[in-house]
Amino acid sequence: MPTHSLDRPQATQTLPTHRPPPPELVSRLAARFGDRFTTGESDRLQHGRDESHYAPQPPDAVVYVADTEEVAWVVSLCAEYATPLIAYGVGSSVEGHLLAVQGGICLDLSRMDKIVAVRVDDMTATVQAGVTRMALNAELSATGMFFSVDPGANASIGGMIATAASGTNTVRYGTMRDNIVSLTVVTASGQVIRTARRARKSSAGYNLTQLFCGSEGTLGIITEATVKLHPQPEYVAAAVVNFSDLGGAVRSVIQAVQAGVLLARAELIDALSIQAINAHSKTQLPAAPTLFLEFCGSRAMVDEQSSFVQDITAQNGGSGFRWATLQEERSRLWTPRHHAYFAALQLKPGCRSFTTDACVPLSNLDACFAETLADIETLGLPVPIVGHVGDGNFHCLVLVDPGNPDEVARAEAFSSRLAERAVRFDGTSTGEHGVGLHKMKYLRQEHGEETLGIMRAIKHALDPANILNPGKVVSF
Amino acid sequence: MPTHSLDRPQATQTLPTHRPPPPELVSRLAARFGDRFTTGESDRLQHGRDESHYAPQPPDAVVYVADTEEVAWVVSLCAEYATPLIAYGVGSSVEGHLLAVQGGICLDLSRMDKIVAVRVDDMTATVQAGVTRMALNAELSATGMFFSVDPGANASIGGMIATAASGTNTVRYGTMRDNIVSLTVVTASGQVIRTARRARKSSAGYNLTQLFCGSEGTLGIITEATVKLHPQPEYVAAAVVNFSDLGGAVRSVIQAVQAGVLLARAELIDALSIQAINAHSKTQLPAAPTLFLEFCGSRAMVDEQSSFVQDITAQNGGSGFRWATLQEERSRLWTPRHHAYFAALQLKPGCRSFTTDACVPLSNLDACFAETLADIETLGLPVPIVGHVGDGNFHCLVLVDPGNPDEVARAEAFSSRLAERAVRFDGTSTGEHGVGLHKMKYLRQEHGEETLGIMRAIKHALDPANILNPGKVVSF
Repeated sequence: MPTHSLDRPQATQTLPTHRPPPPELVSRLAARFGDRFTTGESDRLQHGRDESHYAPQPPDAVVYVADTEEVAWVVSLCAEYATPLIAYGVGSSVEGHLLAVQGGICLDLSRMDKIVAVRVDDMTATVQAGVTRMALNAELSATGMFFSVDPGANASIGGMIATAASGTNTVRYGTMRDNIVSLTVVTASGQVIRTARRARKSSAGYNLTQLFCGSEGTLGIITEATVKLHPQPEYVAAAVVNFSDLGGAVRSVIQAVQAGVLLARAELIDALSIQAINAHSKTQLPAAPTLFLEFCGSRAMVDEQSSFVQDITAQNGGSGFRWATLQEERSRLWTPRHHAYFAALQLKPGCRSFTTDACVPLSNLDACFAETLADIETLGLPVPIVGHVGDGNFHCLVLVDPGNPDEVARAEAFSSRLAERAVRFDGTSTGEHGVGLHKMKYLRQEHGEETLGIMRAIKHALDPANILNPGKVVSF
Repeated sequence: MPTHSLDRPQATQTLPTHRPPPPELVSRLAARFGDRFTTGESDRLQHGRDESHYAPQPPDAVVYVADTEEVAWVVSLCAEYATPLIAYGVGSSVEGHLLAVQGGICLDLSRMDKIVAVRVDDMTATVQAGVTRMALNAELSATGMFFSVDPGANASIGGMIATAASGTNTVRYGTMRDNIVSLTVVTASGQVIRTARRARKSSAGYNLTQLFCGSEGTLGIITEATVKLHPQPEYVAAAVVNFSDLGGAVRSVIQAVQAGVLLARAELIDALSIQAINAHSKTQLPAAPTLFLEFCGSRAMVDEQSSFVQDITAQNGGSGFRWATLQEERSRLWTPRHHAYFAALQLKPGCRSFTTDACVPLSNLDACFAETLADIETLGLPVPIVGHVGDGNFHCLVLVDPGNPDEVARAEAFSSRLAERAVRFDGTSTGEHGVGLHKMKYLRQEHGEETLGIMRAIKHALDPANILNPGKVVSF
């Protein structure tokens, strides 16, 4: 067997855990950015954390950039001084993506909030990376189009691309991956590239768009994106139905998708989540596993498909099927689902949620749920569950007292078992949250050492000095 | 600015144009593969060409492999001797992908034709790379599912992934990129990797699945794939409608897509193609730009959407709208479209088609067509046109006498102008055929030198000895 460059031993490469910016770099940044550059503690602290359970690890400085050219200038400078650089959108990531584990400069892109172009005829929009999904949809509301990807949080489009986010309507409109046409990216050497032009499809060379999507700021800084838009549906209906067990809900969704029903959303929440919602919102919903469904299209299509799905749910033990078609009624029907996360947190005052993200092939979802429920039974912690069933993706919200090391350790052990279980069911340790710091340890089991070797080879090729979000996704 | 490894000068690197396998490699291959290894001229000639206009450039030998392990063994051996290796499916590529421009070993994967698993519950199938799309669909016919990607030719699934192929129903079901879950790949060092597990979505690390898709055998050899399946539609209707100009047809499709109509196919062919078909099939179709449409779903949905689209076409100057719903009638209605390519070739006896592949944003399609039609008027060659309008993609079939250097030169010049035009309209020089040899020269204009530098850096990282289909996609 030939000795291959990918096989280089990793252990010989030791990097300092903290690589602070040299004073000259700091003064050059301060000179150019003025009050858009700061080393103040509150700014640094705010930028050294995300929605994960980790304690903050602040960067050494924060710079607020306004456009691609400024990003390129900062990256070139950091390359010159081999100083780490972490791109920051709104801070809504959940796996420790943003922690400055080696120090360095946080590049805050939130002021890059321009919607550069909306092209209804092409069904695309071009936005700066800091535009949030809600800001884009507000701008689109009068155009007849909308941007579909909805991870819950009002994340930035750049952040959603960097983590390959998805969410509740993926079953109908796809993930972030399916909704990007082209990216503008600043490379590790400070060059500005565009990954593709604006055609809806292309076979012209390697797919850099999809390589940067999901790379979590470790291969380049996404500064602008052209995303796909979808026609606002003519008619929307929502439905809620209860089940005696999770399995009936899972089978209902799978059978509907297999039959070609174009579900717009299919969200499962468990009985504990319903109890949390009842306590939080003073409702009296039946405390049972519940499916929240949405249908969209023409009136005739929605009527036909929803009636068909009602039959399927009945065959799988569903009951109490409720309908809503008017906007206001639909909102009321879906409100419990939207409140599920915050309601869950109130089950245990002062807690934080240790949120998992397993995703398995549809045929394994029922079995993976069953093992997970058995695991939860002996865990001794409250664990409400929400799931994007049509994608085979579900989240356990393990509620822990962050000041109780035993609880945190049990949650971490549960999370590890679940990641291992998802992989054993031929699925993934993260369906839509990304790797960050937290999921790095599961990648070997999920992908194998050889596949990780290819990922590392790409990281080495594109960021040889390891300045872009170092210590994340793959070890250097 | 730092000196970056991506900036290394390319010109210093000169490779021999022919890198024949050393006798020892030949004898080791012969010893292992017996009569599945050949250096015979007819086999070599057959494997040294594709459907492009290029004269054959045969490999030095051909080996017929049966499984991933054999591929890994051959790749390891070729790596040891730094000998080029070209993966071959059914030979239906059209841009010179398969020509052995530096000699070496052709790895024929056509005997890797096992359908490993069909999982109706997951809506996926796992196949060896040599399985053709028609063979897969024959196997699926009784399951209620089908594999959607249809580039016309009965290509191998591996080949379709390697070129990021698409085709007539992309507007509804997406390209090959949208229909892969996971790949098994042999890397340039002979390691076997799996790019992902079988979850429908994942954010776990860099997206190697999409990196290998469209890499045309230059980054690794795809040996197995898990692809997505779709439910066979309950009901299908076909329609044909004529227009006085191409623009009316283009606008009709765009308006339908914008309105949320789920067209299953929307194929445009021009008046010259219709004339060719009339001559070929003894039909009397009106010699006008013609849209071939297909709708699928439930009966009610198809009726509603097709009636809506009929109105749209009428508003855009469409006439003679004809319908078919029974399988036999639909086939008869669509037969002219299926015969368009071979009918076109008969417009000029002994000719070959120099087939272009422009793809532009939808809003630029009309203008790009107009410039192209003006160009054709002064070209002095017959140029029938077919288009996947919903994707902004169209093919000009420039009919040339391959023995007439002047015609070939004019076709090549036209093809260059069209590629340049597609890029100028913010589109791509290849929507679905891939780069091969022929489109390499357009990539700089399409992507820019910096983007090509990133692609080259990836090629260097993954195939440092340049043994995988050398001389294709990007220069080394």
